[in-house]
Amino acid sequence: MLSLEFLGELAQQTSTKIVLLVLDGLGGLPRPDTGKTELETARTPNLDRLAAEGVCGVVDPVARGITPGSGPGHLGLFGYDPLQFTVGRGVLEALGIDFDLQKGDVAVRGNFCTVDAHGLVVDRRAGRITTETNRELCDKLSGIALDGIELHVVPVKEHRLVVVFRGDGLEADVADTDPQLVGKPPLAAVAHSPNARRTADLANDFISKARSVLADSHPANMVLLRGFSQHPDLPTMQEIYKLTPAAIASYPMYRGLAKLAGMKVLETGASVADEIETLEQRYGEHDFFFLHVKKTDSFGEDGNFDGKVAVLEEVDGLLPMITGLSPDVIVVTGDHSTPALLKGHSWHPVPILLHSGTCRCDSVADFSEGSCVGGGLGRFPAAEIMPLAMAHAQKLAKYGA
Amino acid sequence: MLSLEFLGELAQQTSTKIVLLVLDGLGGLPRPDTGKTELETARTPNLDRLAAEGVCGVVDPVARGITPGSGPGHLGLFGYDPLQFTVGRGVLEALGIDFDLQKGDVAVRGNFCTVDAHGLVVDRRAGRITTETNRELCDKLSGIALDGIELHVVPVKEHRLVVVFRGDGLEADVADTDPQLVGKPPLAAVAHSPNARRTADLANDFISKARSVLADSHPANMVLLRGFSQHPDLPTMQEIYKLTPAAIASYPMYRGLAKLAGMKVLETGASVADEIETLEQRYGEHDFFFLHVKKTDSFGEDGNFDGKVAVLEEVDGLLPMITGLSPDVIVVTGDHSTPALLKGHSWHPVPILLHSGTCRCDSVADFSEGSCVGGGLGRFPAAEIMPLAMAHAQKLAKYGA
Repeated sequence: MLSLEFLGELAQQTSTKIVLLVLDGLGGLPRPDTGKTELETARTPNLDRLAAEGVCGVVDPVARGITPGSGPGHLGLFGYDPLQFTVGRGVLEALGIDFDLQKGDVAVRGNFCTVDAHGLVVDRRAGRITTETNRELCDKLSGIALDGIELHVVPVKEHRLVVVFRGDGLEADVADTDPQLVGKPPLAAVAHSPNARRTADLANDFISKARSVLADSHPANMVLLRGFSQHPDLPTMQEIYKLTPAAIASYPMYRGLAKLAGMKVLETGASVADEIETLEQRYGEHDFFFLHVKKTDSFGEDGNFDGKVAVLEEVDGLLPMITGLSPDVIVVTGDHSTPALLKGHSWHPVPILLHSGTCRCDSVADFSEGSCVGGGLGRFPAAEIMPLAMAHAQKLAKYGA
Repeated sequence: MLSLEFLGELAQQTSTKIVLLVLDGLGGLPRPDTGKTELETARTPNLDRLAAEGVCGVVDPVARGITPGSGPGHLGLFGYDPLQFTVGRGVLEALGIDFDLQKGDVAVRGNFCTVDAHGLVVDRRAGRITTETNRELCDKLSGIALDGIELHVVPVKEHRLVVVFRGDGLEADVADTDPQLVGKPPLAAVAHSPNARRTADLANDFISKARSVLADSHPANMVLLRGFSQHPDLPTMQEIYKLTPAAIASYPMYRGLAKLAGMKVLETGASVADEIETLEQRYGEHDFFFLHVKKTDSFGEDGNFDGKVAVLEEVDGLLPMITGLSPDVIVVTGDHSTPALLKGHSWHPVPILLHSGTCRCDSVADFSEGSCVGGGLGRFPAAEIMPLAMAHAQKLAKYGA
């Protein structure tokens, strides 16, 4: 895979524009009765026309056989090798609630839990307290003072919360405090490396103070922490590609991932139409747009084949709003497959189409898993999409004389 | 290529089963008069059906243009990067005679040779003595005592033997003693690195004592050694993939290679039918089976196009015995190509089919080199077959959140 330094040396700022349309969980599997995937079932004349005019292929989000989570899936799309750059669970949880994570922050997922009189965990989820109670308890915990750092305790849903330690010199290499079993006491936070000792000390101080604060809040009378992780401090897309990138995503986690890559997050509404309207309105301000459609994945996860088909048709119906803007490069793909048949993310490659005036058109006549396999782009890792899009937008200089 | 550590973190034990059917030397070249390869000539309705229902592609055993021996060919199929992990010639020779090689062992190939009164080699193969004479001489040589280690001297065929040094702290980095020319004396064993000095000393002691033992055994009055190599001590497939892998192979070398990967070697008969019967009988005991068919390669090596076609048809006829067991994943491929036209291994990619309930079916309708090129798996290194099979058996957890 090309290094980001190498790409950075070739990248040049131009007036051309790239739109990366990500249909989350796009790839599917054929329904046995029809032999057709979700994308093959959907009536998508506009996507088919783009595929016919452009060049197609399939991408492996990480590598053959590897099923990615949303973190690695999107890092790949943004041009980062998802095996080299990682987003930890605590960070992802923080991004998922729109928490404004800063470089250096250590984030960790928390659970409210119940401990008995001996301090042993009897319920790892504190009876799934309401989100309202969670909010009240997080407010209390936010009052805890820790030596020399800023503490953020933010509710998620039911018993889940995010704890963020903000300060200089923190490292995230700390073991979980969740014993994973009832009948055991919460574990102490243990540093896996000398540099993480301060984080572990702060975490232990937090836990001990949280125990006092929560003493009368049965069943949520203790917290367990897991997935200590740090803002990955990626080289940004401005730095690498000299772009002014923007993200349009109605779901917080994808806004957060885009922010990690240095994108400006644009305010938008909940629907695909809202998102595309935002693209139209802000089209003059940026030269790269990441537009994220969530529901293809959600319906895939639910095993709702027809629901996923309907979202694909909805997106297709709105596509002329995007093509009407005449971006120099349009890429349509997904961060991974989410076949309704498997009710979850999968390792299957994802179809991709690239539409541009600089395409060498192939013989693919419709946008589907089956057709894209024979496309001119071949099969390649998702992290190579960015250099390809940059090239088609004529934003990459010649390498060597 | 994905690291084995990375795969090991994702692998999980499940009840699903994988059958890897290896048709040795599967890939071929078209006969000029028909334009069809061995596989394209053979009538293989069952393989064709599997290909049509599954997903196909072609694999490069090592890399484009590289012709592999059996060692790298099989290491790749078992998921080891054949450029990173190697099996030396001495080790391979020992495996080929079913010698039970242990971790730490240094194995080396030997030739009985003839030396004249001045100690110069006059025949590097000692007039190709009979295997019977070889056996008697190896018995005598086995009586040699070496300081602090165990010595094994094992006959192969005609003038060929294997010498194994077993003991602590041995290294194999020792030069051949075979001068490769007549009229020269046998060379001393020279260590290429300080850690191998002990092995070199032991080898020189062995050679010197062998010279005495063989003094009256003209024409086999001396031995030459080459290919010092050590048990590669691979991380096993149990360790990496949490499998309980078993090998069914009628030829010793393939049993030996499977043993290196940690497979349990099942006793079986000489024919393909015997091997598949063993699969049926032992099917309940393991979750991964490597089933090796040798004769496709043997006929290829002999330049016997029709013989190779006949073996392919024989395998095809027996295939329903395998599919009848309904493994969750069946992979059919080869360790390399052995085109009858070239009478030897070749660098051409090898067709592969993967059949599973989790397949995204492609448009390939028959199992052949030509069809597989357009398959949904694309073209990829053989070492990526294991992660792919593991994924389709739903034995790999999601990477990242």
